[in-house]
Amino acid sequence: MLAVASSILRKSCVKQAYRMTSNMVDKTVDELKDLKISEVALQKPCADSKPSNKSKGGKFVLKCPKGMRDYTPDQMAVRELVFDKIKKCFKKHGAVQIDTPVMELKEILTGKYGEDSKLIYELEDQGGEILALRYDLTVPFARYVAMKKIKNIKRYQIARVYRRDNPAMTKGRYREFYQCDIDFAGEYERMLTDTECVKLVCDILQELDMNNFTVKVNHRKILDGIFEHCGVPEDNFRPICSAVDKLDKESWEDVKKEMVETKGLDPAVADKIGVLVQKKGQFDLIEELEKSDLGENKSAAAGLSDMRLLLEYCELFGCLDKVSFDLSLARGLDYYTGTIYEAVLAPDAKGENVGSVAGGGRYDELVGMFAPKGRSIPCVGVSIGIERLFTIMEKKLQECRTSSIQVLVASGQKGLLKERMKLLNMLWDNDINAEMLYKANPKLLTQFQHAETERIPLVAIIGESELQEGKVKLRDTATKEEKLVDRASFVEEARSLLLNCGS
Amino acid sequence: MLAVASSILRKSCVKQAYRMTSNMVDKTVDELKDLKISEVALQKPCADSKPSNKSKGGKFVLKCPKGMRDYTPDQMAVRELVFDKIKKCFKKHGAVQIDTPVMELKEILTGKYGEDSKLIYELEDQGGEILALRYDLTVPFARYVAMKKIKNIKRYQIARVYRRDNPAMTKGRYREFYQCDIDFAGEYERMLTDTECVKLVCDILQELDMNNFTVKVNHRKILDGIFEHCGVPEDNFRPICSAVDKLDKESWEDVKKEMVETKGLDPAVADKIGVLVQKKGQFDLIEELEKSDLGENKSAAAGLSDMRLLLEYCELFGCLDKVSFDLSLARGLDYYTGTIYEAVLAPDAKGENVGSVAGGGRYDELVGMFAPKGRSIPCVGVSIGIERLFTIMEKKLQECRTSSIQVLVASGQKGLLKERMKLLNMLWDNDINAEMLYKANPKLLTQFQHAETERIPLVAIIGESELQEGKVKLRDTATKEEKLVDRASFVEEARSLLLNCGS
Repeated sequence: MLAVASSILRKSCVKQAYRMTSNMVDKTVDELKDLKISEVALQKPCADSKPSNKSKGGKFVLKCPKGMRDYTPDQMAVRELVFDKIKKCFKKHGAVQIDTPVMELKEILTGKYGEDSKLIYELEDQGGEILALRYDLTVPFARYVAMKKIKNIKRYQIARVYRRDNPAMTKGRYREFYQCDIDFAGEYERMLTDTECVKLVCDILQELDMNNFTVKVNHRKILDGIFEHCGVPEDNFRPICSAVDKLDKESWEDVKKEMVETKGLDPAVADKIGVLVQKKGQFDLIEELEKSDLGENKSAAAGLSDMRLLLEYCELFGCLDKVSFDLSLARGLDYYTGTIYEAVLAPDAKGENVGSVAGGGRYDELVGMFAPKGRSIPCVGVSIGIERLFTIMEKKLQECRTSSIQVLVASGQKGLLKERMKLLNMLWDNDINAEMLYKANPKLLTQFQHAETERIPLVAIIGESELQEGKVKLRDTATKEEKLVDRASFVEEARSLLLNCGS
Repeated sequence: MLAVASSILRKSCVKQAYRMTSNMVDKTVDELKDLKISEVALQKPCADSKPSNKSKGGKFVLKCPKGMRDYTPDQMAVRELVFDKIKKCFKKHGAVQIDTPVMELKEILTGKYGEDSKLIYELEDQGGEILALRYDLTVPFARYVAMKKIKNIKRYQIARVYRRDNPAMTKGRYREFYQCDIDFAGEYERMLTDTECVKLVCDILQELDMNNFTVKVNHRKILDGIFEHCGVPEDNFRPICSAVDKLDKESWEDVKKEMVETKGLDPAVADKIGVLVQKKGQFDLIEELEKSDLGENKSAAAGLSDMRLLLEYCELFGCLDKVSFDLSLARGLDYYTGTIYEAVLAPDAKGENVGSVAGGGRYDELVGMFAPKGRSIPCVGVSIGIERLFTIMEKKLQECRTSSIQVLVASGQKGLLKERMKLLNMLWDNDINAEMLYKANPKLLTQFQHAETERIPLVAIIGESELQEGKVKLRDTATKEEKLVDRASFVEEARSLLLNCGS
């Protein structure tokens, strides 16, 4: 299936013209679906049930919770394909996998997400512990490292997280969504693991054939240095930082307005910040800043030295061309202490902007918030925004085959149900994926059509004459060629024909 | 990793003696852990945090929610191995995968689980829909089939479910646990899909090298027929049925006591039931019952005819020797309407009883509870009790290797960090799993020890002389043999050496 899917992926550019219209239709349909609530009458209450007031004899709402979705078999095939590729990259770098419960004690999550804490799903107090659903994978990871007293680990985790945010499902923004995180915990040589995070993001996006991207990098110490240097009062650092973070979506004028009018910053100070945070570059920018007044700021100088090393190491890892040192990158979360990253895809052929597909940074103090005696373990990590990648891949892989069946067992004559079952069992016992229609006497044409629709490469046919002669007829669904083979060797014959079918 | 793990699995019987002691220690440790709550002081409240009253300046409870657990990398390796084997079996039968949200609207779950509804986790009403965590995968599947108006599907789903039950974590009983379900929805020829469920359970347990098991089968119509025939009042059918279900754990005397004293059944009626429900067999038992008075009961006769067909089909599928028609099997859930199954492992060498590892049945009315106009779709399915299988496999696979690294890049000389990084990148770019120690100047011995501990088969070593001569030294960790190769061909050399290392 993987092979089929990625070959389709490669061929997908020729379908561009078709997809432009198709995507627009999809989007409209999705939007209509988001609005629609299918109300159906509850006709058959279960004999023993105690129906709730809402549904008793009345209307019944048949839907998923707001902002959540079912995955159909086609979507699951894409999901598995993407996960396999990402896991391959994680393993290439020697990461091991962990998992944590979907719930945490509420106090574990408290005070880690700033303003966004209001988006946490809380469980009802049913007598016992006060619980909440995980908001990300980083805080549970820090709790895990502290609780198990781990000194160093290179771990990945692929799991769902929950946010009571305003969903925009057509854009791949859900209330229940997957995160794929890799994090390096431990005392290591400066900037080595920070650079490996950048390398991993590049590896993963290239593995997914999304080659047109940029990894923006910046450093919390440089931002703090800029704020200090420009004269922002220290207790206003974070509010101003979160205003800067909006520069990828808003103009400098709007951001300045927020700084001055909402956050009470001196307009002259805002202007000084504005000149700096709109700069981006690579080694050239680092040199420029080091030579400027900002270079004398202790925090900024430390951050710039880190950035220089990061860029040098990215060059060694062959991914410098993908990296942009971008002073407007700020990232919202409170717990970052050093390097920060964000990967953005270039706008697609239609000019549609998918935006950020990965993000992360260094958080050296978070484990210490959980650890006995506050002893912290330095950490750096990156999270892949997998739902947006699913949305892109789903559009690319519209014909991804979901069934894995290799042989359909069929008959054109009546009364051969048990004979079909025997043949089916021979295939199963030889580890060949096989099925038959669950009917006593299906028509041969119906069976051939099923094989074509489901793209089952081979049909094994038996009738009275084949049974008497100890033969089985094998039919190639694509070429319609038929071959009569001995029953004793039919499994081997099927296996070698399947190799040629390319299944 | 899979190959390594299953080879260890095969060798595991020789470790039996060791494991008997080891398991007893594990169990005691687990029990102590269940009791222990590690309280640690919260030393470093985050600058911006608004800590809850509980944690503010005081003690902080560092644990997973009750009845839930983290998966360590070793446990994850076992989990992935088991999932891969189960998925392989599901795909062999042509099933497609779906997924549903972890939450459902509360009213979807209401009235489906009888007494057990009190175990459902409910979410706090934070303004919006009233939500609850899924209790199983069957009800969400029925909702999915009804909502998407699906006529037929063969689907599997592997996902976590939630029950506020009394956990017994050392026995693999959790409040958050995986279920692996396969279900067949659609109008099919009688008993075909019912039999395929039995075949699938056999396939999966054999794939996991657990060959000593029995699949008990029974039929709700036979049980109802027995109750009717013996004179149980109809509104007492289900309470009496759930008493019968306890026969695998309790003696007949205790079950009879419950029927008579708690559920008010006439002792003579109980005795008549007792004679019947303690019977088990295969075709012989079906014949005996058909010839008896019970055979004249319409419901029982219909069930017996189904059972005969099931056993005939099991014979065709080569799994009759694993099947026991067992009249004491009742199963608790309300929604079953026909065939019911339960797979039990034989007690292990120590006589420890793991009990049920799979269960399921036919539920022809559940989809209709959700469908517009109450139109139902017949369904039958089986759920694999994966947590118990994990627990067994974890004990078997204690040495399952978790890291996937093939080559460690090392140096014995100082100042070669960047040279190590270049070599590492060459390996990554050629899709070889590789790592180095994240230190500027690690000792060569430390690096060799790391390769041994982590079972990394190959070490690539560079020093000044290798660099000058354009060479790389490759060291086999197991044999300690070293080979000097050209840098230009070192990736290919490494690849061919890895084939011999059997990694």
